[in-house]
Amino acid sequence: MAELRGGIDLGGTKIQAAIVDPSGQVVGEARGATPTTGGPQDVAEAMAAALREAAEQAHVDPSALQGVGVGSPGNADERTGVVSAARNLPGWEGSFPLAETLERALGSEVRIGNDVQVATEAEFRLGAGREFKSLLGVFWGTGVGGGLVLDSRPWLGRGAAGEIGHMVVKHGGARCPCGRKGCLEAYAGRGAMEAEARRRQDEGEQTDLFELMEKHGKPRLTSGIWERALDHGDELAERLVERAIEALGTGIASAVNLIDPEAVILGGGLGIRFGERCMEPLTKEMGKHLFVDDRPPAVRVASLGDLGGAIGASLLLAG
Amino acid sequence: MAELRGGIDLGGTKIQAAIVDPSGQVVGEARGATPTTGGPQDVAEAMAAALREAAEQAHVDPSALQGVGVGSPGNADERTGVVSAARNLPGWEGSFPLAETLERALGSEVRIGNDVQVATEAEFRLGAGREFKSLLGVFWGTGVGGGLVLDSRPWLGRGAAGEIGHMVVKHGGARCPCGRKGCLEAYAGRGAMEAEARRRQDEGEQTDLFELMEKHGKPRLTSGIWERALDHGDELAERLVERAIEALGTGIASAVNLIDPEAVILGGGLGIRFGERCMEPLTKEMGKHLFVDDRPPAVRVASLGDLGGAIGASLLLAG
Repeated sequence: MAELRGGIDLGGTKIQAAIVDPSGQVVGEARGATPTTGGPQDVAEAMAAALREAAEQAHVDPSALQGVGVGSPGNADERTGVVSAARNLPGWEGSFPLAETLERALGSEVRIGNDVQVATEAEFRLGAGREFKSLLGVFWGTGVGGGLVLDSRPWLGRGAAGEIGHMVVKHGGARCPCGRKGCLEAYAGRGAMEAEARRRQDEGEQTDLFELMEKHGKPRLTSGIWERALDHGDELAERLVERAIEALGTGIASAVNLIDPEAVILGGGLGIRFGERCMEPLTKEMGKHLFVDDRPPAVRVASLGDLGGAIGASLLLAG
Repeated sequence: MAELRGGIDLGGTKIQAAIVDPSGQVVGEARGATPTTGGPQDVAEAMAAALREAAEQAHVDPSALQGVGVGSPGNADERTGVVSAARNLPGWEGSFPLAETLERALGSEVRIGNDVQVATEAEFRLGAGREFKSLLGVFWGTGVGGGLVLDSRPWLGRGAAGEIGHMVVKHGGARCPCGRKGCLEAYAGRGAMEAEARRRQDEGEQTDLFELMEKHGKPRLTSGIWERALDHGDELAERLVERAIEALGTGIASAVNLIDPEAVILGGGLGIRFGERCMEPLTKEMGKHLFVDDRPPAVRVASLGDLGGAIGASLLLAG
């Protein structure tokens, strides 16, 4: 059993745990809601519970795992296992020794990594990026995150590389949830898209988005709600998704002009749901801004789906 | 003498040749004008003449050099020594075997590299970037070029990395000399700045820029002419330089958010001339867009000056 590894993807709304075998196959998995009240200790307990459930499914005791990796938001320090400033988690403005806490709870070694970076590495090693040596991962969800693999190795810079969501696509443009102006995420992040949809509805534009949200009992405009609205021909939804794709194409092309990777892997909640549907407009938008436009990088939808983050986290323990 | 290396920086207006000793010291140098008519063969002859003159100054025969490196614009293939699509050189729309031609003329091994990349490596190994392991070189001149060193190694991507001048800073923005819209170079490249100055003068704005240009017998608005205009308090010149710095700060911050390097080295004709003068507004503009804003990268002016390109080219022969 020592070859089995655990992985936990810690998101703002859900916690996904998986038990992964040496070939990258998922042999147990469980999902829980991320606590919305309390503090880091409560979140850590929910993470341990999800991991135990996944381990039970795989008929392994957590303490018998080779170890458990965590893909974390905020500022995740790989060396110390401390996570700071995870602002989409309850009471996590400060620092919390997440690895240490989980090690005590699970009786297994725990390693921490950045959520988007581990998902990028999972796609590189096991998913849609397997055939490439360099790639840019773009995770289109509540925010827009990114990860880099260059010359078959993760590139972290000084620890914060990959923030494609905060590349500027329009100087002086829309206000981003991060507080700055004109970032890619200000146009393409699901959070920013929802805020813009609400603002436009308040100004009198017609949309079924919020009715659909209530009808389906969702607390926010999930990727599923956006998809339903598009399927209904909701014009505001169409315009905002087009605007997001325009910003994504522009930001990705800028990134490609700078680092010239072999491939771009599109993941995240919206990326996975809309990937195939938006591939043509997205690559068309990119094409408008690619400096070397006769050999664009391959653009692929992440193939590990929702489990990519947890699988990638488990790879923190590998070799 | 076998330890001496030659380097040639091939620019759109001038050819700079240098003879460099193993410690990186320049022991001979010569400069010639880039032919504006004819074709690649004429350019190659002018390059060989400049190199011979530099070698004579260093009391070495070109055939006794360890080799000669060339920093070339256009699409420079390091493996074959062929340069294609060097559109700012006369009659060079196609491909030309530059290394082979120079080898015959000089009796020495010749290697070809990208002009901006070799200048970045020169700053990394011998100049303002010596203390860093990762850096972004930004060459602010007629165009805006860039080069990357990551983990102490050049990063070329698929051969075209570093095109920071064609990162988009304003979606739907100004037309770039490359034909696309909203690129950094559309605001900060000297060529685009001159075109914009002329357009605004034609629309009735006052400026001494073009008078100064004629008075000093220059065919274009050189960095020296821009500097004189600023020193005179020319308001149009001030506005256009501010606009360029705003775009540079935005584009550099976007690049830093993506790759998180230790340092940014600012070179090129305008970068070297205005570097110190613009450091404060530039870092202020960058600060507005840096996602991790409490530890900005070091920003330094290139220290090898005009010779950086030729010195960097000579390093193509090293190690």
